[in-house]
Amino acid sequence: MKATAKAHTNIALIKYWGKRNEELILPTNSSLSITLDRFYTETTVEFNEQLTSDSFYLNGEQASEKETLKVTKFLNLVRELSGDTRHATVSSTNHVPTAAGFASSASGYAALAAAASKASGLQLEGEELSKLARRGSGSACRSIYGGFVEWQKGTKDDGSDSYAVPILEQEAWDLSILSVMIESKQKKILSREGMKRTVETSPFYDGWLKATEEELQIAKKAIEKRDFELLGETLEKNAFKMHATTLGADPPFFYWQPATLEIIDYVQQLRSQGVLAYVTIDAGPNVKVICEPKDEQKVYQTLSEIDSVKEIFVCHPGPGISYL
Amino acid sequence: MKATAKAHTNIALIKYWGKRNEELILPTNSSLSITLDRFYTETTVEFNEQLTSDSFYLNGEQASEKETLKVTKFLNLVRELSGDTRHATVSSTNHVPTAAGFASSASGYAALAAAASKASGLQLEGEELSKLARRGSGSACRSIYGGFVEWQKGTKDDGSDSYAVPILEQEAWDLSILSVMIESKQKKILSREGMKRTVETSPFYDGWLKATEEELQIAKKAIEKRDFELLGETLEKNAFKMHATTLGADPPFFYWQPATLEIIDYVQQLRSQGVLAYVTIDAGPNVKVICEPKDEQKVYQTLSEIDSVKEIFVCHPGPGISYL
Repeated sequence: MKATAKAHTNIALIKYWGKRNEELILPTNSSLSITLDRFYTETTVEFNEQLTSDSFYLNGEQASEKETLKVTKFLNLVRELSGDTRHATVSSTNHVPTAAGFASSASGYAALAAAASKASGLQLEGEELSKLARRGSGSACRSIYGGFVEWQKGTKDDGSDSYAVPILEQEAWDLSILSVMIESKQKKILSREGMKRTVETSPFYDGWLKATEEELQIAKKAIEKRDFELLGETLEKNAFKMHATTLGADPPFFYWQPATLEIIDYVQQLRSQGVLAYVTIDAGPNVKVICEPKDEQKVYQTLSEIDSVKEIFVCHPGPGISYL
Repeated sequence: MKATAKAHTNIALIKYWGKRNEELILPTNSSLSITLDRFYTETTVEFNEQLTSDSFYLNGEQASEKETLKVTKFLNLVRELSGDTRHATVSSTNHVPTAAGFASSASGYAALAAAASKASGLQLEGEELSKLARRGSGSACRSIYGGFVEWQKGTKDDGSDSYAVPILEQEAWDLSILSVMIESKQKKILSREGMKRTVETSPFYDGWLKATEEELQIAKKAIEKRDFELLGETLEKNAFKMHATTLGADPPFFYWQPATLEIIDYVQQLRSQGVLAYVTIDAGPNVKVICEPKDEQKVYQTLSEIDSVKEIFVCHPGPGISYL
């Protein structure tokens, strides 16, 4: 009747960029991520027959009607699976500061899926739990597992083969992920909206699909061989390609800001000095820099000297879902 | 035996970005430009049977061996056409400061083609002259004409149908073209090299070809109807797409600098205030802003207040080839 789960954010090395089904959240391409150790969401769900509606508390405060409606919509999926029609109280604490440049939707829906399904008596295994989390937010399906994770896009219309699988556990390969914050303004075009416009209007979208499929295979091989240079080159290329597609959308748009380019330039300079560091960028202006732990201090110091850098958060591979 | 010609630079609204034949300089897509009034090259060619080799003076000084070799290679094409085997003295004055953000190759080869062909007794008409200029530098074929010009890519392997045609004379529609200089460093990747890498490796190149063909037709319709908003939107989209293709190249590259994005942002802000101004960007970090003459002062003032802007050169549509 009551359960608490904890899920961590993840960062995509091969990007999820486009849906083939908006309702079921089915992606057009497979993606690959690292679950991170530093930022997470803890969520408690309690079903109670006395309740006449769901209620949702976020960071100790009652959430807005709009946010509560999203939670109810998600709980309806759980109620459908369990056959339990009771309402629930959901309390969620986000340890994902907006200022850290990570969306909380991945850890948020992963934790909600785990807590809600357990509280309703469902015993969902990884694959089933991943599919459930996916319905809340696509990238949430990857936060079920720790370490390196692949979201296999699947091909079926009902989404039954679209879920994440673990590639390599977190202890097997330590990497440093530096989230470099340059900008606190809210992003103008949400990723959900940006990817939709791109899929529908960009003439580069076919090229993206073809390239990203190849890059995923290369990235997986690089992870298997612990070949950081190959992984880094591949993830950086993939991020650039994702952002290129938005320039072809109608109307065109881009997430980059002047400081975004400045940081890319610094990272490329680091490489020319022999320090293997690579960038990836999500649907916003901030840059994530990935390097090996041995170079973390050097990279951190170089980036922290840039005027336009406000803050840097350092992460490492983290664990999958846990229950408290 | 001796002739002097003057040719102006041009700016592409629909970009030339990729060759299908490197030797003959045949493009993969048609392009569209405005010849500009402000920057030009004047070139005198004199054939003389006493000479044992060609010589080339640029801005009053003897040019390097490498530059002279390029001129000889071009004169060989003229000698092939005329049957005249004499060598020549070529004197060229570039009124295209590198600092103005325009390549001098377009005006340079257009003036050289005109002066050399006239000096050798050839009476080349516009179409033939355009094809000759094309062999020196692709965009030079457009500088034969004034005003709005289309370079029709052609389909034949020998390039005989790849030349420029005038679309609208310079007096028919005045526009303001502001070349906004932010950076004096030499560009790292030359356009010739950049387009080659893009054609060979970018998964977005097919999308570019398809889109640019459509955008050319829209731009021509906009010019016909003097619809500045439609022309502006189209040229800006086209420039963004050209730059998107480079992000997909292997290795990826981009011509933008932080200040490039800053200027784009200012121009988009101007539009949100009702001032119709649009950007285009060539194979370098500088931005060209296009607006109607009535808005020129407002646009100039806004851009000149940006710290990272070093200088702004204002141009208008200019004339085609002339003989002095």
